[in-house]
Amino acid sequence: MTIQEIKDYLGRFFDSVELAGNTDVLISGPAKIESAQKGQVSFIANDKYVRHLATTAASLVIVHKSVCVDDFIQNTSFLKVADPYTAFVFLLQKFATPRIIAQKGIAPSAVIGNDVSIGDGVSIGEFAVIGDRCRIGSNTVIGAHTVLLHDVAVGDDTVFFPNVTCYDGTVVGKRVVIHSGSVIGADGFGFAPQKNGSYIKIPQMGIVEIGDDVEIGANATIDRATMGSTVIGRGAKIDNLVQIAHNCSIGEDTVIAAQAGISGSVNIGNQCMIGGQAGFAGHLELADRIQVAAQSGISKSFLQPGIALRGYPAQPMRDQLKHEAMLRNLGAMREKLNQLEIEMKELKKA
Amino acid sequence: MTIQEIKDYLGRFFDSVELAGNTDVLISGPAKIESAQKGQVSFIANDKYVRHLATTAASLVIVHKSVCVDDFIQNTSFLKVADPYTAFVFLLQKFATPRIIAQKGIAPSAVIGNDVSIGDGVSIGEFAVIGDRCRIGSNTVIGAHTVLLHDVAVGDDTVFFPNVTCYDGTVVGKRVVIHSGSVIGADGFGFAPQKNGSYIKIPQMGIVEIGDDVEIGANATIDRATMGSTVIGRGAKIDNLVQIAHNCSIGEDTVIAAQAGISGSVNIGNQCMIGGQAGFAGHLELADRIQVAAQSGISKSFLQPGIALRGYPAQPMRDQLKHEAMLRNLGAMREKLNQLEIEMKELKKA
Amino acid sequence: MTIQEIKDYLGRFFDSVELAGNTDVLISGPAKIESAQKGQVSFIANDKYVRHLATTAASLVIVHKSVCVDDFIQNTSFLKVADPYTAFVFLLQKFATPRIIAQKGIAPSAVIGNDVSIGDGVSIGEFAVIGDRCRIGSNTVIGAHTVLLHDVAVGDDTVFFPNVTCYDGTVVGKRVVIHSGSVIGADGFGFAPQKNGSYIKIPQMGIVEIGDDVEIGANATIDRATMGSTVIGRGAKIDNLVQIAHNCSIGEDTVIAAQAGISGSVNIGNQCMIGGQAGFAGHLELADRIQVAAQSGISKSFLQPGIALRGYPAQPMRDQLKHEAMLRNLGAMREKLNQLEIEMKELKKA
Repeated sequence: MTIQEIKDYLGRFFDSVELAGNTDVLISGPAKIESAQKGQVSFIANDKYVRHLATTAASLVIVHKSVCVDDFIQNTSFLKVADPYTAFVFLLQKFATPRIIAQKGIAPSAVIGNDVSIGDGVSIGEFAVIGDRCRIGSNTVIGAHTVLLHDVAVGDDTVFFPNVTCYDGTVVGKRVVIHSGSVIGADGFGFAPQKNGSYIKIPQMGIVEIGDDVEIGANATIDRATMGSTVIGRGAKIDNLVQIAHNCSIGEDTVIAAQAGISGSVNIGNQCMIGGQAGFAGHLELADRIQVAAQSGISKSFLQPGIALRGYPAQPMRDQLKHEAMLRNLGAMREKLNQLEIEMKELKKA
Repeated sequence: MTIQEIKDYLGRFFDSVELAGNTDVLISGPAKIESAQKGQVSFIANDKYVRHLATTAASLVIVHKSVCVDDFIQNTSFLKVADPYTAFVFLLQKFATPRIIAQKGIAPSAVIGNDVSIGDGVSIGEFAVIGDRCRIGSNTVIGAHTVLLHDVAVGDDTVFFPNVTCYDGTVVGKRVVIHSGSVIGADGFGFAPQKNGSYIKIPQMGIVEIGDDVEIGANATIDRATMGSTVIGRGAKIDNLVQIAHNCSIGEDTVIAAQAGISGSVNIGNQCMIGGQAGFAGHLELADRIQVAAQSGISKSFLQPGIALRGYPAQPMRDQLKHEAMLRNLGAMREKLNQLEIEMKELKKA
Repeated sequence: MTIQEIKDYLGRFFDSVELAGNTDVLISGPAKIESAQKGQVSFIANDKYVRHLATTAASLVIVHKSVCVDDFIQNTSFLKVADPYTAFVFLLQKFATPRIIAQKGIAPSAVIGNDVSIGDGVSIGEFAVIGDRCRIGSNTVIGAHTVLLHDVAVGDDTVFFPNVTCYDGTVVGKRVVIHSGSVIGADGFGFAPQKNGSYIKIPQMGIVEIGDDVEIGANATIDRATMGSTVIGRGAKIDNLVQIAHNCSIGEDTVIAAQAGISGSVNIGNQCMIGGQAGFAGHLELADRIQVAAQSGISKSFLQPGIALRGYPAQPMRDQLKHEAMLRNLGAMREKLNQLEIEMKELKKA
């Protein structure tokens, strides 16, 4: 692509794309600013990387419209936009080599059950197993070895990577991406304790419902509800190895980082951000836009939107930081205490 | 089912099932008390839900025999039992739609090794791979894509969901359930450090033995022993994404919640309850009926049965709660200390 | 094997192997010192196990050359070496029953893409799927149901257990072992936040590169880089359920225990040891030979080689242990404070 073509492409997303420097260079692909070579495009979204402008070999750099690039346009061309990070994401999408997860059509080795409906343009990979009465939307891709048990409904333009397992009854929206190894709809962890110390299994009769535009990482687990649905809201992003227990509801556009664990019947609001390895006790609620620090332990509901939480048990960030500062100063407190004790002894002697 | 039929069914499990209200209503299925509709059955096992009795649309509610329902029998029927929760679990089982994990018989695409013995009534799903010399008990179900390496022994009435992997030599009991993505018998994490900083792999020559009535969640990992067996005791319940390292022994009817991690050579007693994301150091022992709070870090053995543990490093609950209270009061301590310091200065001045 | 044969075998690894006792006993296999039977070989690498010498039924015990065994040679033979643990590891390898992961050759059910190159002596298991343009080195074993998407390069003598998934472009070295359920090269967790609270996916265009002699446990996840490579250095050992996010670099011979989580763009040095369930914030660096205690939370870079870290947020071990001791003594501090308060009151009264 020429720089002019890139300018035109970004113009589809931004009101203003300003060029500084040469337009007729050919750009072969994207790279990080530190390692970019001649012919590559990079970006700077953070002031602390501006220093790289003097030395980068990139032929094109996307910068914020406020950055002064006059000193560098001899060697490098620039496109100035309001949001260079997002602009670069669009370029990454443009340059991305198409990944083939499964060939168009149904692989001869795939096994399709009875009364299955399959939309136009679907790709179903080798050894995929589609259970009875499943419905697969148009242009959806089902990777090799992915198993949908019976009565699974999948929307259009959704992608299952290889080796995903969906239990019976799962409902998956449009434009969803589910990475390899994830298990959707396994039985919730529900057992009724008996007097002799053993357990009776509580049948998990509900399902999992995954909204449109959700992405689920590798080896995550989302359990079916006991009754009703475990719900992953539209646009939520769930990282690798996350556990979401039965009867949870995860809000729209909420992001959950790797290895976080959400116990049963937790309700998380919209646009929350949950840090990696954070854990939630069961049956609690989080309001919208709450941020939970990594490794925190959430032991109760927090109903005020937009707050940040941290610690074990987690509390609002301001309280927790004060608490942590006090802990760090414990040595000083002890010294002061010992000093007072000495002074007290002296005073009493006197 | 009519209410009379439900009463008769529960009478098989409870000495006394007392009816209040109408018996000839038809019940179509179970639901939560808040969302139950006409024709559905629900339950109340906790006093704080009794308030829903005034408003529920459920046609039948299972309650504890002590609950007074006289005000509600105009609209709702009741069955009074000693344990409404367990009674409802039995009803869930009664109403559960049968889930088909694999069709009866051996799927034509499954690959069965040499010298395999397969009991009556077994179901083996598409693309399952059963290694040489495996023995599969009667009525056992092996989901699509599940792989048993060679010399695996499985008891009767056991269920493997799709995409389970069992390494060679694994022994699995009767009525066991293993959910998708779990890996049983992978090599323990054992490497002998060499002087140059690299490692030699220690062959993991043992196996995993899983007792009867165990349930293992999705994407859990249970490693084979170095020598001998890693043992999961009868009736143990292990949640999603749990790690059980080599040479561990997990007691009977012990419950381990999601994402907990048990290091090598740990012995956990019977009827313990391990919270989610709890972690155990290696080579330690827990007595029977110990409860470990979520996210705790167990750093040493605890040999007194029945205690509760919490914290990092974990200690008995009473000590830990005292410790946490002290931490919460650290601000007050600091104030008192500063106040004393001022008073001391004044005293010395005087 | 006779004891003489074992002595000769160990002589290939150790300068000195000294025999005490009988040489012509037949040894059938290895066992732990507590449970070893007649005809078995065991070892003692730790002084606290020396007491077992009086009672063990083992016919042969490997001990350190400094251990005095004169009292026991009537019943037991001994081989004395400089490193009995490593000697025993070599014996374990000698006695290990060969495990068959896949038969030599390509299983008839495996699906091989276009332009794939396959080395001599390769084993490819049932239903394995090898994407277009993959290159598989000599004597490599690919378990049943393992999926390599297109353009994956694998070195010689590498083992994939069943049900591994490698995304497109992954590069795997020689003598690597990857256990079942692991997912290599899934998309990094990268999304650009938009003003309306939703996210645009950032294409993850990089790959994962795994060095020679790496071992990766079951159900681990290693994400591909956004651009460039996520790198697992030669000889690194990664346990079950570990998460390694995009753009990380893990040093050579570094060991990461189960359920640890490494956030994006973290650089870990060589020969580090990371404890189980430890978590790392993103974009930080660890020097060589650093040890991180289990469940620690690493929130910043540590650039001094060889230190030990612990706590949340983690700090050097000495500081952290001091801090923990202070926390344990908080009760004493409070008592002292209350005592001082009383004395102060009395003094002021006087």
